[in-house]
Amino acid sequence: MSNKIPRVVIVGGGFGGLATAKALRGAPVSVLLVDRNNHHVFQPLLYQVATSVLAPGQIAAPIRGLLAAQENTSVMLGNVTGVNAELKRITIDANDQTGVEIDYDYLVLATGATHSYFGHDEFAAFAPGLKSLADAESLRNHILTVFEKAELEDDAPRRHALMTFVLVGAGPTGVEMASAIAVMVRTTLRKDFRNIDPATARIVLADMGQRPLGTFAEELSEAAKLRLLQLGVEVRLGKPVQSIDEDGAVVGDERIPSKTVIWTAGVAPSPAGKWLGCEVDRAGRVRIRPDLTVSNRPEVYVIGDTASLDQDGRPLPGVAQVAMQQGRYVAKAILRKIEMRPPLSPFRYFDKGNLAVVGKNFAVLQSRGVKISGFIAWLVWALIHIQFLADSSLRFSVFLQWLMTYVSGRRGDRLIIQGRKTS
Amino acid sequence: MSNKIPRVVIVGGGFGGLATAKALRGAPVSVLLVDRNNHHVFQPLLYQVATSVLAPGQIAAPIRGLLAAQENTSVMLGNVTGVNAELKRITIDANDQTGVEIDYDYLVLATGATHSYFGHDEFAAFAPGLKSLADAESLRNHILTVFEKAELEDDAPRRHALMTFVLVGAGPTGVEMASAIAVMVRTTLRKDFRNIDPATARIVLADMGQRPLGTFAEELSEAAKLRLLQLGVEVRLGKPVQSIDEDGAVVGDERIPSKTVIWTAGVAPSPAGKWLGCEVDRAGRVRIRPDLTVSNRPEVYVIGDTASLDQDGRPLPGVAQVAMQQGRYVAKAILRKIEMRPPLSPFRYFDKGNLAVVGKNFAVLQSRGVKISGFIAWLVWALIHIQFLADSSLRFSVFLQWLMTYVSGRRGDRLIIQGRKTS
Repeated sequence: MSNKIPRVVIVGGGFGGLATAKALRGAPVSVLLVDRNNHHVFQPLLYQVATSVLAPGQIAAPIRGLLAAQENTSVMLGNVTGVNAELKRITIDANDQTGVEIDYDYLVLATGATHSYFGHDEFAAFAPGLKSLADAESLRNHILTVFEKAELEDDAPRRHALMTFVLVGAGPTGVEMASAIAVMVRTTLRKDFRNIDPATARIVLADMGQRPLGTFAEELSEAAKLRLLQLGVEVRLGKPVQSIDEDGAVVGDERIPSKTVIWTAGVAPSPAGKWLGCEVDRAGRVRIRPDLTVSNRPEVYVIGDTASLDQDGRPLPGVAQVAMQQGRYVAKAILRKIEMRPPLSPFRYFDKGNLAVVGKNFAVLQSRGVKISGFIAWLVWALIHIQFLADSSLRFSVFLQWLMTYVSGRRGDRLIIQGRKTS
Repeated sequence: MSNKIPRVVIVGGGFGGLATAKALRGAPVSVLLVDRNNHHVFQPLLYQVATSVLAPGQIAAPIRGLLAAQENTSVMLGNVTGVNAELKRITIDANDQTGVEIDYDYLVLATGATHSYFGHDEFAAFAPGLKSLADAESLRNHILTVFEKAELEDDAPRRHALMTFVLVGAGPTGVEMASAIAVMVRTTLRKDFRNIDPATARIVLADMGQRPLGTFAEELSEAAKLRLLQLGVEVRLGKPVQSIDEDGAVVGDERIPSKTVIWTAGVAPSPAGKWLGCEVDRAGRVRIRPDLTVSNRPEVYVIGDTASLDQDGRPLPGVAQVAMQQGRYVAKAILRKIEMRPPLSPFRYFDKGNLAVVGKNFAVLQSRGVKISGFIAWLVWALIHIQFLADSSLRFSVFLQWLMTYVSGRRGDRLIIQGRKTS
């Protein structure tokens, strides 16, 4: 590599990393984006893959393809294992080799988050989460399989456990997943079986807090709760999950026999803090400075779900918008440094608003004082999500699929695919 | 179950089993279709999933959905392990239980075929085949992964091995797969990489026979061979594959270093012959009578790839058309027996013709004396395949996807998804 062109290494091809890379298009830097997957996933729609509405390829796009036209950018499939900030070097596992070293002039860690079981790691085996395409496909396989088993099960208690779904965590993912299952069992699956009626499935949404969608205004939480109850979802609030095993969960003091417990309650950041050996917050996220760098490392940026930054006395939420805005900020900040111009003013998140879907035709929307729930909010949700899907070719296909599922109740991707090998 | 309504048990939801079930719609029988997968796969397009053109959901449909409107039919997810023809009973593994027994009045075994390595089972680990959605997804993951590794590989011989593809077997699947890879590396992947040029990939198609597409007329084999050479595919004929290991294959006396060997050379029938303990042909397929039943078992039918029947002195080929025509024949034959009407005249296969695609814009077509190759044959191929896709909602989506890939060279489903769990 020439010494003249600064090298920007971005780790992670999620919303933050991709936004950084795209904002560096045509800039006088050499960009390398490293991700352990070959694709960017539109995470807010993972629940639709898990409930057979969309195919994995409709919410994911190969990172290479997204950045192919950017001549200053290359993409590497690799798993980062460490950072040597002193030597400005990261180590990765790639191409079947461990400890491959890559030098950087600027480093952007956008490595996201995974599930947190709040110290109950033993729950993990029985209550998977929903963070990756593989998670979503596993859940799709599982949900379809429990109905197949229920159809063949003569023992009533076992049949009920197969047809009971427990969602732990009533944030957007838990609410969307619970309502999507409720809609699926009453529409798509209704006519498929002869011995069971999928519409009788029991769906329980549990949270320790006192209301669903805790980050929304109280009136919207109420609207969402009402809608969930209308959809037949049992909402259990203020009840901690005491235990989870292969036969179900104990929520408060109620044992719920279930073969499907889904965990959406907590997230744990990537090990970026450990790699850097720097200050982290209680959840383990890297405490970053208002210019999104790490203390004493003006060339190391940390953004998105793995970073912790307060704004107006409150931590920024772990949402796509924060990561994307941070990514674009970082790209500008790096260019300023290279061009020896004065630094940017500190990062400020511009909150465009929040949306969560509750089943068909219903969403809650909160944006800069506006609070609405119902069909209009749902329409806004659909339009915004089509708009934001990273790859233009995906938009049309998702739109068509939604239209078809909306009108007919059919779900195209109702496949249980077993035994795939990976290499 | 009432004794008055005869129970038809169909094993296998491929072309043969599905055709039987559909032809029994509204008939005075109770139909049970058992398959170990929840979906019917349109096998002739598996190679397009393996080469990232189509998504799994575009060539597969849930069997329940396909038969949901047929009130006399139920579907069961289960793996058949044996047949007791004396007691008219099959045993299956289903719902985590082994040895579940199911009684039948009529049995239709349409259990298809798997790969055969002609006694070289040790090849299986290094040369997967292409029979199921899981196979196709594994290959897709693998093909995309070797390019990712090649991009990072400094050692030239290792890089070349990563970019070399060996197809064993020059039947339709081998020819279609070889040409599809050739098109993919020259279009879709071309701009994705910085260190390698995917278009320089080496593609070798090997067969023991003297020509590709051996079941077609010689002039069409010649046309196909010419087209393969134009696409840059190396065609090795009359050369047996001596060995296959993790570093490549020995074809004739040439060692070809390769990280991707794909086996399309042979098929082995399902164990239907063993279950029935009846006469089989050299390949292990059940020898059936002209009415598609097994000797001395007028209530047991065997159809499709797992059956062996001669017509005009030659065995019927293992193609979808044979299985579908047999399935419809069996449905009629069963109804005749139930209604005490005279039996049907013996089964006769009506050969509508054969088609094979060689890359973009080129196919060979042979049908009742007509032999054409080139663009017109390719158009016919595209129309017929859209027409035959089992599920009407799939047709439109496949058509759109093809149109997009045809015009832009883009492939939507270029995803490496790792670590999915099955339950």
